[in-house]
Amino acid sequence: MLTEHQITFRVRYPETDGMGVVHHSRYFQYLEMGRIELLRASGISYAQLEMEGILFVVVKVECRYKAPARFDDELTLTTRVARKTHVRIDHQYLLKRGETVIAEAATTIACVDRQGALRVIPEEAIGT
Amino acid sequence: MLTEHQITFRVRYPETDGMGVVHHSRYFQYLEMGRIELLRASGISYAQLEMEGILFVVVKVECRYKAPARFDDELTLTTRVARKTHVRIDHQYLLKRGETVIAEAATTIACVDRQGALRVIPEEAIGT
Amino acid sequence: MLTEHQITFRVRYPETDGMGVVHHSRYFQYLEMGRIELLRASGISYAQLEMEGILFVVVKVECRYKAPARFDDELTLTTRVARKTHVRIDHQYLLKRGETVIAEAATTIACVDRQGALRVIPEEAIGT
Amino acid sequence: MLTEHQITFRVRYPETDGMGVVHHSRYFQYLEMGRIELLRASGISYAQLEMEGILFVVVKVECRYKAPARFDDELTLTTRVARKTHVRIDHQYLLKRGETVIAEAATTIACVDRQGALRVIPEEAIGT
Repeated sequence: MLTEHQITFRVRYPETDGMGVVHHSRYFQYLEMGRIELLRASGISYAQLEMEGILFVVVKVECRYKAPARFDDELTLTTRVARKTHVRIDHQYLLKRGETVIAEAATTIACVDRQGALRVIPEEAIGT
Repeated sequence: MLTEHQITFRVRYPETDGMGVVHHSRYFQYLEMGRIELLRASGISYAQLEMEGILFVVVKVECRYKAPARFDDELTLTTRVARKTHVRIDHQYLLKRGETVIAEAATTIACVDRQGALRVIPEEAIGT
Repeated sequence: MLTEHQITFRVRYPETDGMGVVHHSRYFQYLEMGRIELLRASGISYAQLEMEGILFVVVKVECRYKAPARFDDELTLTTRVARKTHVRIDHQYLLKRGETVIAEAATTIACVDRQGALRVIPEEAIGT
Repeated sequence: MLTEHQITFRVRYPETDGMGVVHHSRYFQYLEMGRIELLRASGISYAQLEMEGILFVVVKVECRYKAPARFDDELTLTTRVARKTHVRIDHQYLLKRGETVIAEAATTIACVDRQGALRVIPEEAIGT
């Protein structure tokens, strides 16, 4: 499985708020896209995992906002697996517009079953 | 069951967009709150209906935007049952800030089971 | 200027709701992306228009929901200019997943200045 | 000015995601409501501050998710001013459903002018 992946996307209009910048809550939706596309680039479909009852929940997040992002900005998000245990994965993120750092973030996700109980991350979710 | 109900709420910051006004997509989230609170005021919990496998899906919406709404505005939404059949309910809505009309809207919802198949609206969802 | 344009995108996780399908309010965010990309494909940047004080507000929308869309679905949206006057543009939309029609919609947008007053659509917003 | 305030609100339908729980990004919108209502309870309107060119931007956030929240849950958020300097305010948050802790969070906000430059927090934003 890949340990690092990059995606590029544009800021959508309703992601900005009345201040004319991307609302700080929206960044976590970008980070989630980063994790999902890191999986896809490794040959794993998160939608498929969910159907098999392999779910990931977010346990902890943190984000430092360095510069505002605006509507239509083309942003590049680098998602990196920082640490992996039997039940948790730590990711680190760098969000940039060109050479400008927009945000730095880190998350911890845990693997659960459909009832929300912690489970060991199965091989299908790790890839080969 | 009540055929008309009014709710009052404030516009939240991330509901506004870069133009400084409530994004037009957000109004449908307000309308949904209007329907849910109309049910609650009639003694029916939509959350409870869902647990029993009685779901409502939106089939059709329309909305005319008359004046912009801004962050922290206190809005009043009147939700009215316009027509009811065995499987569908039409609602009409009037959204105002004081005497100013912000939007007029109409929706059609249909009752479905967990598989998404149309079903007759059961009595629990109509109230007494 | 182009009168029709197609975009393809994937459903993001938080666009789905507790029913496991895309929330009906989200479709209007997709339609807006359709309009913005139709402009871009015609050589016009909506972000640039905004900086010049040429804004478009949504006056009226309607949408008919035909089939649910789910997380990670790849959707294709066709945006078509249906009618254009000096101050308004009507668009029609067809949203599909493969051959399945997900939704049909129509919107009317109007050109306003920074104060929200109606203005004639300038040539920069029409293209050549 | 108050240093602690509590608000109670219900989870809205589109705040939940396909997993049937509140999407982790949404919590930051709740925290923002907590800050705004803490101000209001202290006699300060954030909307008014904005009109005067006194804006607050989020510099850093962190959140630990303890238990899922679901549609229609009634949640109580306690917002507390943890530390205050001339330009920054640190808040801490506790989100609960009854006695169940849903999340613990912390944020740092900074005062900026309309151009986004850091400025000293004025007295109007602190209250008396």
